[in-house]
Amino acid sequence: MGNVIIDMSVSLDGFIAGPNDEDAGLHHWFFSPSDTTAKVIEESIKTTGVIIMGRRTYDIAAEQDGFVNNPYPVPHVILSRTVPEKLAEGAETFIFVTDGIEHAVQQAHTMVSNKNIVVGGGAYTAQQLLKSGLVDEIHLHLVPLLLGHGKRLFEHLDISPIELQSLGVIETPDVTHLRFRVIK
Amino acid sequence: MGNVIIDMSVSLDGFIAGPNDEDAGLHHWFFSPSDTTAKVIEESIKTTGVIIMGRRTYDIAAEQDGFVNNPYPVPHVILSRTVPEKLAEGAETFIFVTDGIEHAVQQAHTMVSNKNIVVGGGAYTAQQLLKSGLVDEIHLHLVPLLLGHGKRLFEHLDISPIELQSLGVIETPDVTHLRFRVIK
Repeated sequence: MGNVIIDMSVSLDGFIAGPNDEDAGLHHWFFSPSDTTAKVIEESIKTTGVIIMGRRTYDIAAEQDGFVNNPYPVPHVILSRTVPEKLAEGAETFIFVTDGIEHAVQQAHTMVSNKNIVVGGGAYTAQQLLKSGLVDEIHLHLVPLLLGHGKRLFEHLDISPIELQSLGVIETPDVTHLRFRVIK
Repeated sequence: MGNVIIDMSVSLDGFIAGPNDEDAGLHHWFFSPSDTTAKVIEESIKTTGVIIMGRRTYDIAAEQDGFVNNPYPVPHVILSRTVPEKLAEGAETFIFVTDGIEHAVQQAHTMVSNKNIVVGGGAYTAQQLLKSGLVDEIHLHLVPLLLGHGKRLFEHLDISPIELQSLGVIETPDVTHLRFRVIK
């Protein structure tokens, strides 16, 4: 526990969204889960203590139904350049951190010790986090699609190779859940 | 059988080789296989009827030990702009096709009916093949590494989304074998 986890849906060609941030079918498994996947989601909700997300991911959710139906009833830390004047519905308690990913993670650590800090999006936030060396685990939900275009999770990393340890695979017809630990 | 299969090792961040085509640890699982992986390799060798590869992949192998220890005792079709004057050791019977991927696949189909046509590299050849719509299956051997840089398998695709069907996952500590069928 207390792990920093990147947790995202990704197409087989490595995209977490379409070119205009559209869902592109990458989260169907989450909203209409199979029995096996429902257990994966339940476990994730149970072990998540704080969610970190980038400002663009926040804005996309805010433009839709806000965070009213958010299944993660935990503090949210938003990595942002600025603090919005009015917060989206369901986001009234969200914390905006404007001085970088390290501080966002520090802030998150002060909020929980016995649960995980989960980074749910977007690609830029995940990339900053990987470059910072603060990631403990990567959980990918691999969707059997080649999108051809979109927002790529793993690019602009400019890192030396990072070794991972596979923590297990859970296979379902519509999504393969992959978990890795960063070897430090 | 008679399927056209892209079969490659890939890092979690989507690279099939380092920036200078170096192996980067992506084929260790093949040369020092676990018992489970040995069965995956054995099955692949048994069901492969023809191998297609790009010229650069051929050249890299030729610069090393040639094809003397090639475990695939089947016809090889090399997609190339030109035919080399002298063939590498073990490659004396290789066929060079200079008029595009469609012709390379056609040529391969004339050679086998009851076994598969396997495309083993490189990225450009796989990309041409995906764009041609001729791929039946994608077999990825996912290595738990983030390389940060390298030759990316899935890019420059310029395709409409392609739906895949998961054909199963075989998990081992050092590589996860993923198989998908292209839904046509």
